[in-house]
Amino acid sequence: MTDSMILVTGVYPVGGHLAGWRHPTAYPDIAMNLDAMIELARLAERGRIQALFLADGNAVRQMDKPALFEAVAPSDRPASFEPTTVMAAIAQHTAHVGLFATATTTYEQPYLLARKFASLDHISGGRAIWNVVTGSYPGDAVNFGGGFPERTDRYRRAGEFLDVCKGLWDSWADDAFPQDKASGRFLDSSRVHVLDHVGENFAVRGPLNVARSPQGHPVLFMAGQSGPGRDLAAQHADCLFTVAQTKEESLAAVADIKGRVAAFGRDPAALKIIPGIRVNVAGSREQALDLYRELNALVSPALGVEYLSSQVKQDLSGYPLDGPMPDLSTEVAGVTSIRQSIGEMAAREGLTVRQTYQRLLAADEDPPFTGTAAEVADEMEDWFRSGACDGFMMNVPTLPLGLERVVDLLVPELQRRGLFHDDYTGGTLREELRLPVLRNAYFDTAHAGSTT
Amino acid sequence: MTDSMILVTGVYPVGGHLAGWRHPTAYPDIAMNLDAMIELARLAERGRIQALFLADGNAVRQMDKPALFEAVAPSDRPASFEPTTVMAAIAQHTAHVGLFATATTTYEQPYLLARKFASLDHISGGRAIWNVVTGSYPGDAVNFGGGFPERTDRYRRAGEFLDVCKGLWDSWADDAFPQDKASGRFLDSSRVHVLDHVGENFAVRGPLNVARSPQGHPVLFMAGQSGPGRDLAAQHADCLFTVAQTKEESLAAVADIKGRVAAFGRDPAALKIIPGIRVNVAGSREQALDLYRELNALVSPALGVEYLSSQVKQDLSGYPLDGPMPDLSTEVAGVTSIRQSIGEMAAREGLTVRQTYQRLLAADEDPPFTGTAAEVADEMEDWFRSGACDGFMMNVPTLPLGLERVVDLLVPELQRRGLFHDDYTGGTLREELRLPVLRNAYFDTAHAGSTT
Repeated sequence: MTDSMILVTGVYPVGGHLAGWRHPTAYPDIAMNLDAMIELARLAERGRIQALFLADGNAVRQMDKPALFEAVAPSDRPASFEPTTVMAAIAQHTAHVGLFATATTTYEQPYLLARKFASLDHISGGRAIWNVVTGSYPGDAVNFGGGFPERTDRYRRAGEFLDVCKGLWDSWADDAFPQDKASGRFLDSSRVHVLDHVGENFAVRGPLNVARSPQGHPVLFMAGQSGPGRDLAAQHADCLFTVAQTKEESLAAVADIKGRVAAFGRDPAALKIIPGIRVNVAGSREQALDLYRELNALVSPALGVEYLSSQVKQDLSGYPLDGPMPDLSTEVAGVTSIRQSIGEMAAREGLTVRQTYQRLLAADEDPPFTGTAAEVADEMEDWFRSGACDGFMMNVPTLPLGLERVVDLLVPELQRRGLFHDDYTGGTLREELRLPVLRNAYFDTAHAGSTT
Repeated sequence: MTDSMILVTGVYPVGGHLAGWRHPTAYPDIAMNLDAMIELARLAERGRIQALFLADGNAVRQMDKPALFEAVAPSDRPASFEPTTVMAAIAQHTAHVGLFATATTTYEQPYLLARKFASLDHISGGRAIWNVVTGSYPGDAVNFGGGFPERTDRYRRAGEFLDVCKGLWDSWADDAFPQDKASGRFLDSSRVHVLDHVGENFAVRGPLNVARSPQGHPVLFMAGQSGPGRDLAAQHADCLFTVAQTKEESLAAVADIKGRVAAFGRDPAALKIIPGIRVNVAGSREQALDLYRELNALVSPALGVEYLSSQVKQDLSGYPLDGPMPDLSTEVAGVTSIRQSIGEMAAREGLTVRQTYQRLLAADEDPPFTGTAAEVADEMEDWFRSGACDGFMMNVPTLPLGLERVVDLLVPELQRRGLFHDDYTGGTLREELRLPVLRNAYFDTAHAGSTT
């Protein structure tokens, strides 16, 4: 078979849907629930899924809107494990699945971060992934002195941060620690490199006090959609999360990104493009649609209003839930056709605020990648074979149900079609992802292969 | 029985003795060996030892002296796991033993550190220990911009850092996350506290995005010997590592430290004093002495010369190993009686440099806490019953042998004498250590007990 597609699955404690955690099948006690995380990881591994994604941030959000705060959207995460520690724990209960830890270059120190990711890579036997973020949520800054750097500055810092980490990760040759009891030579002093980095943001001498890790360094994922974000990924990343509503959008993104990769002198194939999709697969199409209907009926009003507000670009949280929708025909900054059509619908039918967000949710009850395994696989196959992606980041509506259905229904279908590997290779995650072996920048290694 | 003594055991990858890793029974491949760490943790747990200590630092040391660098002293740690990740992994293979992670207040950020330790405490079911250090090794600074703050500044930063972390760890009441599917109320917005800290070194708004952890926060160990170090511990720590050569020295340290604790308005009993001791227990006294003799014969010349140099306060690494000792009767800064007596011995007997360090090592082949279980227990009992300590940090010469003997020989003897608990309580580490339950500073909790 040709290369397998890459499947990553999100494990958001509260589920991917706004009401995911409220579903009758959802975990009843998901805040800080390590056992649930381990169960999900094992489930993903049963489905041969290559990696487990866990989003992260460094602040509690939405505290200024108590109703919204109490309802907790999937992106809010008020009670969540620190990523590298929880992934080190999950690594002990799994053998193959890749383990994402998100960490920000804006508030971390490269020496400390390089250490913990090298350590995680050792601990997991070569399964560490660093989801590199620059901390685009300004609310995180208040926990780090308050200053929120401009995007340009954040990306410059990120680039230098990555240079430093890559240098530190190559501090030691793979044979640097002979540990020869007879001669007393624990290490070979000719097999260590002092980085001596002095740059705009960092001065880091090195070497790192961790031996080179099984993958050389963690697989680097990024998610930048902006030009600078894509350039950073084109230069440094192994995989890039993208956002695309259609195959055509994804094809355009791929063309743009692969062009940037080539411009940095890298093989365009070396950067894998992984769009995020909402997957809702079930035994029948009707069963899949029912799940969305059921979940939409469970959406808390505060989240429904917030969703509506984001669509119409206006905060509607001050309006009575069962009162009439305000007039949306007035100008707001960035007015969109969606705002206009929602406003016209509400006025025409005399809808309340609640009715309007319910209409909006209902209109989204049959999005792409919803249906039977064959139907969802059809769409995935179309994207994949068209070159619109190298795989998918699957966001399922509720856990564990959504992931169980992916593993039991969708994965076998993809395997039957030769789109997805039948089993893990048993190597490091880089091997699972068909990424080139990383050569040490300063030392010959026993490994063959090209460099990134 | 009265309170059990606290036993902590060090798990240095290269062993506690200068030649620990070279012993025939030592692990053949100890650099980045997670399996060995897990085995040691399980061994400690079989012996009901309350906590596993792992020293740490943020630099590779001794690179300017290649021979010394290659030989690796126990304090050098050129290849070691990042502490919180490895302890999160070890937590998955153990159920009761406390897990130390060392981290420095000088280079870390309080929000990130508070998160990872709260996370470790959740992951381990309430067994996290933070060994708070201020990064007293100046060589670490080159990996963090280069500036090494004065001790006074480091301790002020440490005090503020601890205030911030303690505030963040109490961000949420224990009942803050009802996760009520019926009402859609995931969290209770009246049960969260915003710290809003603005101080000399840090501005951190909070709250922490981790629920309050099983212990309230990790057990806090420190190791300061200086006045400021002891004051910081007296104010903040649960346990303090001390250095004492004799019971009398330890009694004096206890009196000084407990006085400082009282001066900060805390119950002097709330701070446990844990001197570090070298323990070498065996089936017979001769067998214990043989182990030291055997290890001393394996000490690499570079380490032997370094040890001699530290004793005579003069770098002797430039002198031929088998050439005569230089004249030590000349003045050097901080000249000691040890320097004088070593110099006289070497001159009198015409010793070479090698012979001199070998004599020095041999003179230390029968230190305290060496011998049969009964002999070692006698000394420990004397210290403990005299009030010279609340327990011991045991440094064994080679691993796993030294720890196996502690578990199989010494622990049963201490248990027979009623000095050491027969089994774990099954509660959190704070309960194992008989430390007071931590009340949340901002919310009533279900727990009874006093505050620290």
